[in-house]
Order: sequence, then C-alpha cells, then structure tokens
Amino acid sequence: AILAALPHTGETAPPLAGSEGPLAGKHVLVTAGPTHEPIDPVRVLANRSSGKQGFAIAAAAARAGARVTLVAGPVSLPTPFGVTRVDVMTAVQMRDAVIAALPADIAFMVAAVADWRVAASASKLKKGDGPPELQFEANPDILRELGERPDRPGLLIGFAAETDDVIANATAKLERKKADWIVANDVSGDVMGSDHNRVHIVTRDGVTDMGAMTKAQVAQMLIDRIS
Amino acid sequence: AILAALPHTGETAPPLAGSEGPLAGKHVLVTAGPTHEPIDPVRVLANRSSGKQGFAIAAAAARAGARVTLVAGPVSLPTPFGVTRVDVMTAVQMRDAVIAALPADIAFMVAAVADWRVAASASKLKKGDGPPELQFEANPDILRELGERPDRPGLLIGFAAETDDVIANATAKLERKKADWIVANDVSGDVMGSDHNRVHIVTRDGVTDMGAMTKAQVAQMLIDRIS
Repeated sequence: AILAALPHTGETAPPLAGSEGPLAGKHVLVTAGPTHEPIDPVRVLANRSSGKQGFAIAAAAARAGARVTLVAGPVSLPTPFGVTRVDVMTAVQMRDAVIAALPADIAFMVAAVADWRVAASASKLKKGDGPPELQFEANPDILRELGERPDRPGLLIGFAAETDDVIANATAKLERKKADWIVANDVSGDVMGSDHNRVHIVTRDGVTDMGAMTKAQVAQMLIDRIS
Repeated sequence: AILAALPHTGETAPPLAGSEGPLAGKHVLVTAGPTHEPIDPVRVLANRSSGKQGFAIAAAAARAGARVTLVAGPVSLPTPFGVTRVDVMTAVQMRDAVIAALPADIAFMVAAVADWRVAASASKLKKGDGPPELQFEANPDILRELGERPDRPGLLIGFAAETDDVIANATAKLERKKADWIVANDVSGDVMGSDHNRVHIVTRDGVTDMGAMTKAQVAQMLIDRIS
C-alpha cells in the first residue's frame, strides 16, 4: 500500500530474485551486522550485533519478489537465497557500498555501525607499551546521509538499539536522520545474538509496540507492512 | 615421546573421548578465539581471531584419544566431536574457566586474549556525548599465570600472533611466560579468519619453520609432535 504512492526509481536491471510477489520490480537495500574498526592488524573496536535481524529482512524481501542488496559487516551467516551480498568490514566501507548500491526503492539500515573509528597502527601494539592511546574520529552517519541525498530511497527505515529511553531516543533519531520509520528495540536484555526480538515501530504518526516475536517474524511483519 | 617424560597429573575422571590413541588418558586444555571486552552493553573491544586454529587443535587432540576441554571466546564454530566446550566472553572469564579446568597434562593457549579491558558503561554510550573515554585496566596474563602455578600443565604451549619481528617476539615470550613452546605466526597477511597458517615452533632448543599448511594440518602436526 505504501509503495503504490512511491515514485519508481527508474531501476532497469532485471530483478535477481523472483519477478512475482508484492515487491516484484523493487530494489530493497539492507545493511546488517556490526562494523569492525581496526585498532591495529589484530585488534578491533566492534559490537555485539550478530546480523540475524538484517539477514532475516533481506531474506523476507527476496521472498516477496524484490531485488535485494545486502551490505553485511563481519558476521558468520549464510547468504539468504536470491540476495546479492556485499561484505564490508568498516563503517566507511559500508557507507561506500550503500551509496554504490543506489538507487533503491526501500532501505532498511539495520547494521550497528560504529560511531567512531580510530587512527589504526600498522603494527600490532605491544602490551609492554601500555594501554593503547586511541585517537577517535567520527564515522560517516549512513542513515542521515541517505536521508539527505537527492536520490534518497522512497522509504527509508532506520533501526535503533537502545538500553534506556528506547522510544524517546528512537523518536529523536527519526527527526535527526530524516528517516520514515525507526524500528526501535531494547537491547538491555539478551536480544543481541539471539533469535528473538521485540521492536517498536516509530513513525511521524506514532509508536506501535509489535510485541515479542522471532527475528524472522519481525522481518516478515516489516515486509508485510511495506508490501 | 615427550609425554613419556611427563609426570601424570593424577587425573582420575574417565576420558570423554576415546580411550585408545596416543593421547588416551591425557587431559588436553585448549583456549581458542578472541575475547570481547565490553565498552557498554553494545560495543566491545575485540580482535579478528576466528578460533579456527584452536578448534582444529581440540579436534585433533580428541581424535588422538585425549580428554579435551576447549575454552572458547565468542566464535561461530561448531564444537568438535568428543570435546567439552566452555564458552566465555572476556579475558577474566577465560582465565577463570582455564583455572577451573586444571589439572591438565597439556595446555594449548591459542586464544587471542585481550591485553586490556575497559571500565564498561552500564548504558549504551550516545554518539552526541563525543568519543568514548576508555579507562584501560590490564587483563590477567593467562599463559604466564599457568606457567607459574604449582599445578602447571606438564607441557605448556603458547601462541604468538605477530606482525613484526615474529621470531624475536616469540622467543622473548617463551622466556617471559615460562612456556615450553611458543607457536608463532605472522598475521600481517590474511591469516586471521582463513583456513591456512604458517607457523614456527619456538622452543629452548631452537626455531622450526613448519612451512605453509592448512590450520587442520597445523593442528595434526602439533598433536603428532606431542604424542
């Protein structure tokens, strides 16, 4: 229903996935997993994202007939059937891969992108030299960058993993990033890495608590809502 | 041959793996994978260790008839057949699991243990607050601690992943940690996460370049040398 109101992006490449289904002819862009920001050739700044939610969304979109590009951080998950996967390590690489994949009709920015990167050492830091002195630089804000581009996806969906003030933080993020929806979840429990999730969908119309379900069910519910 | 000269640890529990083979009746303790040191509920200090080399060694030891305890950091690998696996997240948890698994006849300390942990925040740090101010504390040095204990494993084997001066760093580590062997590898290339490795075995008798092989072959070669 939502898609009927969206302009077509003019995408001409033939869909890789099925040419039938509610998302046939649409290009869906999904990011998933963590980013790893190198400290030296061995050590990284990382996060606990498993990539499961993003991979489930990519799979559900492909099943709905979309052409799907999945930009994945370092995770150990099989590529869903019918999905074109681009593997990246860092936030900068993820941004570049996302921009290269445009135009897209719908973008699910699910990855837990590191806010900061560090000026990495070319050699392994030695313990005897004491704690590492990390010089932080701000990483690109991929969601915000997409939200401000002239070729912005018609439907731009961000994710917010929070431990406190989940709804307030997600609502602020919706405005700040110029996104259409923020899918918010509370990761103060055992969500990260698990097969279950409980999300709230935050739009300019309000907040919907979707209740507890599996990550596969969250994915299908989101695809159903945009189909 | 080496084991014939080692005193038995007095281990009385029945072996979980086969009771035949060159390591029958021996308890082999293996650590593998990275550690994750929390920065907040989402972010971690981590490293690129995949756990593949340590898991391969645990598998080879079990095939040789040993009772095997595998203390594993956060990795996505199946547990080798006949191996008792203990999953941990941090260096402190890994140390506690290693000590709890003693006594052991042979210990392979393969894990890439973080040298430093940080005073973690209970809430997710917000990007708008600026770069995280990380307060580092030294982690336990598990290899050295094992080397200095009265119930030190009869054969204590450390691993050294280096990018520069590989042999010199491994030789210094052998002395500093009171280990019997250091298995050194150069991780300046694509070793981390791959199925291949090239190791040098550093002992008080000298250095042996084992040449390029798969991680499974490195594991079998090490088990053959201690059987």
